Amino acid sequence: MIAQTPPVPYYAVIFTSIRTGVDEGYGDMAAEMVRLATEQDGFLGVESARNDTGITVSYWKNTDAIRTWKANTSHLLAQKYGRDKWYEEYKVRICLVERDYGF
Amino acid sequence: MIAQTPPVPYYAVIFTSIRTGVDEGYGDMAAEMVRLATEQDGFLGVESARNDTGITVSYWKNTDAIRTWKANTSHLLAQKYGRDKWYEEYKVRICLVERDYGF
Repeated sequence: MIAQTPPVPYYAVIFTSIRTGVDEGYGDMAAEMVRLATEQDGFLGVESARNDTGITVSYWKNTDAIRTWKANTSHLLAQKYGRDKWYEEYKVRICLVERDYGF
Repeated sequence: MIAQTPPVPYYAVIFTSIRTGVDEGYGDMAAEMVRLATEQDGFLGVESARNDTGITVSYWKNTDAIRTWKANTSHLLAQKYGRDKWYEEYKVRICLVERDYGF
Protein backbone atom coordinates (compact mmCIF):
# COMPACT_ATOMS: atom_id res chain seq x y z
CA MET A 1 0.00 0.00 0.00
CA ILE A 2 1.13 3.55 -0.71
CA ALA A 3 0.74 5.78 2.35
CA GLN A 4 -1.81 8.56 1.97
CA THR A 5 0.21 11.42 3.37
CA PRO A 6 -0.90 15.06 3.78
CA PRO A 7 0.58 17.97 1.81
CA VAL A 8 4.30 18.62 2.48
CA PRO A 9 6.18 19.34 4.67
CA TYR A 10 6.14 16.23 6.84
CA TYR A 11 8.77 13.75 7.98
CA ALA A 12 9.85 10.30 6.78
CA VAL A 13 11.89 7.76 8.73
CA ILE A 14 13.61 5.31 6.38
CA PHE A 15 14.55 2.10 8.18
CA THR A 16 16.73 -0.13 5.99
CA SER A 17 17.76 -3.48 7.40
CA ILE A 18 19.44 -6.82 6.78
CA ARG A 19 18.05 -9.66 8.89
CA THR A 20 19.92 -12.40 10.68
CA GLY A 21 18.57 -15.94 10.18
CA VAL A 22 16.89 -15.76 13.61
CA ASP A 23 13.10 -15.58 13.68
CA GLU A 24 12.13 -16.02 17.39
CA GLY A 25 9.13 -13.73 17.62
CA TYR A 26 10.22 -11.39 14.85
CA GLY A 27 6.99 -11.50 12.82
CA ASP A 28 4.74 -10.91 15.82
CA MET A 29 6.89 -8.08 17.11
CA ALA A 30 7.13 -6.41 13.68
CA ALA A 31 3.33 -6.53 13.29
CA GLU A 32 2.83 -5.23 16.84
CA MET A 33 5.23 -2.33 16.23
CA VAL A 34 3.32 -1.30 13.10
CA ARG A 35 0.03 -1.51 15.03
CA LEU A 36 1.44 0.51 17.93
CA ALA A 37 3.01 3.11 15.61
CA THR A 38 -0.32 3.78 13.94
CA GLU A 39 -1.73 4.74 17.36
CA GLN A 40 0.92 7.39 18.05
CA ASP A 41 0.21 11.11 17.87
CA GLY A 42 1.60 12.50 14.64
CA PHE A 43 1.75 9.16 12.80
CA LEU A 44 0.84 9.64 9.13
CA GLY A 45 1.41 6.28 7.45
CA VAL A 46 3.84 3.44 6.76
CA GLU A 47 5.13 1.51 3.75
CA SER A 48 7.15 -1.69 3.89
CA ALA A 49 8.84 -4.23 1.61
CA ARG A 50 11.46 -6.90 2.14
CA ASN A 51 13.63 -9.12 -0.02
CA ASP A 52 17.28 -9.54 1.08
CA THR A 53 17.09 -5.91 2.09
CA GLY A 54 14.09 -4.68 4.06
CA ILE A 55 12.85 -1.12 3.78
CA THR A 56 10.19 0.34 6.07
CA VAL A 57 9.32 3.99 5.67
CA SER A 58 7.12 5.58 8.33
CA TYR A 59 5.73 9.07 7.94
CA TRP A 60 5.29 11.56 10.77
CA LYS A 61 3.97 15.05 11.36
CA ASN A 62 7.19 16.37 12.92
CA THR A 63 10.41 15.37 14.74
CA ASP A 64 8.70 15.49 18.16
CA ALA A 65 6.41 12.66 17.08
CA ILE A 66 9.44 10.67 15.86
CA ARG A 67 11.33 11.26 19.12
CA THR A 68 8.35 10.20 21.23
CA TRP A 69 7.89 7.01 19.21
CA LYS A 70 11.62 6.19 19.45
CA ALA A 71 11.37 6.44 23.28
CA ASN A 72 8.15 4.39 23.56
CA THR A 73 8.74 1.61 26.13
CA SER A 74 7.53 -1.27 23.95
CA HIS A 75 9.43 0.13 20.98
CA LEU A 76 12.64 0.40 23.06
CA LEU A 77 12.33 -3.30 23.89
CA ALA A 78 11.78 -4.13 20.20
CA GLN A 79 14.86 -2.07 19.31
CA LYS A 80 16.94 -4.02 21.85
CA TYR A 81 15.71 -7.40 20.53
CA GLY A 82 16.37 -6.11 17.04
CA ARG A 83 20.02 -5.45 17.77
CA ASP A 84 20.42 -8.63 19.85
CA LYS A 85 18.66 -11.12 17.58
CA TRP A 86 16.91 -10.05 14.41
CA TYR A 87 19.09 -7.59 12.53
CA GLU A 88 22.53 -8.16 11.13
CA GLU A 89 22.71 -4.50 10.24
CA TYR A 90 20.36 -1.52 9.95
CA LYS A 91 20.32 2.16 9.17
CA VAL A 92 17.78 4.78 10.19
CA ARG A 93 17.44 8.03 8.27
CA ILE A 94 15.27 10.92 9.49
CA CYS A 95 14.15 13.04 6.55
CA LEU A 96 12.15 16.18 5.90
CA VAL A 97 9.86 15.52 2.91
CA GLU A 98 10.07 18.74 0.91
CA ARG A 99 8.16 17.73 -2.21
CA ASP A 100 6.02 14.84 -3.39
CA TYR A 101 3.97 13.86 -6.41
CA GLY A 102 2.24 10.77 -7.60
CA PHE A 103 0.49 8.94 -10.40
CA MET B 1 22.33 -3.89 0.58
CA ILE B 2 22.32 -0.83 2.81
CA ALA B 3 23.62 2.25 0.95
CA GLN B 4 26.89 3.65 2.30
CA THR B 5 25.94 7.31 2.39
CA PRO B 6 28.17 10.21 3.49
CA PRO B 7 27.51 12.33 6.61
CA VAL B 8 24.25 14.31 6.54
CA PRO B 9 22.86 16.45 5.01
CA TYR B 10 22.08 14.72 1.73
CA TYR B 11 18.88 13.91 -0.17
CA ALA B 12 16.70 10.81 -0.48
CA VAL B 13 14.12 10.11 -3.19
CA ILE B 14 11.56 7.58 -1.97
CA PHE B 15 9.79 5.90 -4.90
CA THR B 16 6.87 3.76 -3.70
CA SER B 17 4.95 1.82 -6.33
CA ILE B 18 2.26 -0.73 -7.05
CA ARG B 19 2.84 -2.69 -10.25
CA THR B 20 0.34 -3.67 -12.92
CA GLY B 21 0.46 -7.30 -14.07
CA VAL B 22 2.36 -6.23 -17.21
CA ASP B 23 6.02 -7.21 -17.46
CA GLU B 24 7.06 -6.32 -21.06
CA GLY B 25 10.64 -5.22 -20.51
CA TYR B 26 10.14 -4.07 -16.93
CA GLY B 27 13.02 -6.03 -15.38
CA ASP B 28 15.55 -4.96 -18.00
CA MET B 29 14.49 -1.33 -17.80
CA ALA B 30 14.56 -1.29 -13.99
CA ALA B 31 18.08 -2.75 -13.97
CA GLU B 32 19.21 -0.31 -16.67
CA MET B 33 17.80 2.67 -14.72
CA VAL B 34 19.72 1.63 -11.59
CA ARG B 35 22.89 1.22 -13.65
CA LEU B 36 22.40 4.61 -15.30
CA ALA B 37 21.54 6.33 -12.00
CA THR B 38 24.82 5.15 -10.45
CA GLU B 39 26.69 6.98 -13.23
CA GLN B 40 25.06 10.35 -12.54
CA ASP B 41 26.87 13.21 -10.82
CA GLY B 42 25.79 13.45 -7.22
CA PHE B 43 24.45 9.89 -6.98
CA LEU B 44 25.21 8.44 -3.52
CA GLY B 45 23.49 5.06 -3.40
CA VAL B 46 20.26 3.10 -3.81
CA GLU B 47 18.21 0.58 -1.82
CA SER B 48 15.31 -1.45 -3.17
CA ALA B 49 12.75 -4.05 -2.05
CA ARG B 50 9.46 -5.28 -3.48
CA ASN B 51 6.54 -7.39 -2.31
CA ASP B 52 3.05 -6.13 -3.21
CA THR B 53 4.44 -2.70 -2.60
CA GLY B 54 7.81 -1.75 -4.08
CA ILE B 55 10.09 0.76 -2.41
CA THR B 56 13.22 2.15 -4.04
CA VAL B 57 15.17 4.81 -2.20
CA SER B 58 17.92 6.60 -4.08
CA TYR B 59 20.32 8.97 -2.35
CA TRP B 60 21.70 12.15 -3.87
CA LYS B 61 24.09 14.95 -3.01
CA ASN B 62 21.56 17.76 -3.64
CA THR B 63 18.34 18.68 -5.46
CA ASP B 64 20.24 19.71 -8.62
CA ALA B 65 21.44 16.13 -9.01
CA ILE B 66 17.86 14.87 -8.55
CA ARG B 67 16.48 17.34 -11.10
CA THR B 68 19.13 16.42 -13.67
CA TRP B 69 18.42 12.70 -13.24
CA LYS B 70 14.65 13.26 -13.52
CA ALA B 71 15.23 15.04 -16.88
CA ASN B 72 17.66 12.42 -18.26
CA THR B 73 16.41 11.31 -21.69
CA SER B 74 16.50 7.56 -21.03
CA HIS B 75 14.93 8.09 -17.64
CA LEU B 76 12.13 10.19 -19.16
CA LEU B 77 11.31 7.30 -21.49
CA ALA B 78 11.33 4.87 -18.55
CA GLN B 79 8.98 7.20 -16.66
CA LYS B 80 6.59 7.27 -19.62
CA TYR B 81 6.60 3.46 -19.98
CA GLY B 82 6.13 3.26 -16.21
CA ARG B 83 2.93 5.29 -16.34
CA ASP B 84 1.69 3.60 -19.53
CA LYS B 85 2.43 -0.03 -18.68
CA TRP B 86 4.20 -1.02 -15.50
CA TYR B 87 2.75 0.94 -12.61
CA GLU B 88 -0.78 0.95 -11.31
CA GLU B 89 0.14 3.74 -8.95
CA TYR B 90 3.27 5.40 -7.59
CA LYS B 91 4.41 8.16 -5.33
CA VAL B 92 7.70 10.04 -5.34
CA ARG B 93 8.91 11.88 -2.25
CA ILE B 94 11.95 14.18 -2.27
CA CYS B 95 13.46 14.39 1.20
CA LEU B 96 16.29 16.15 2.98
CA VAL B 97 18.04 13.61 5.22
CA GLU B 98 18.70 15.54 8.41
CA ARG B 99 19.99 12.77 10.68
CA ASP B 100 21.03 9.15 10.36
CA TYR B 101 22.44 6.39 12.52
CA GLY B 102 23.01 2.71 12.16
CA PHE B 103 23.87 -0.57 13.79
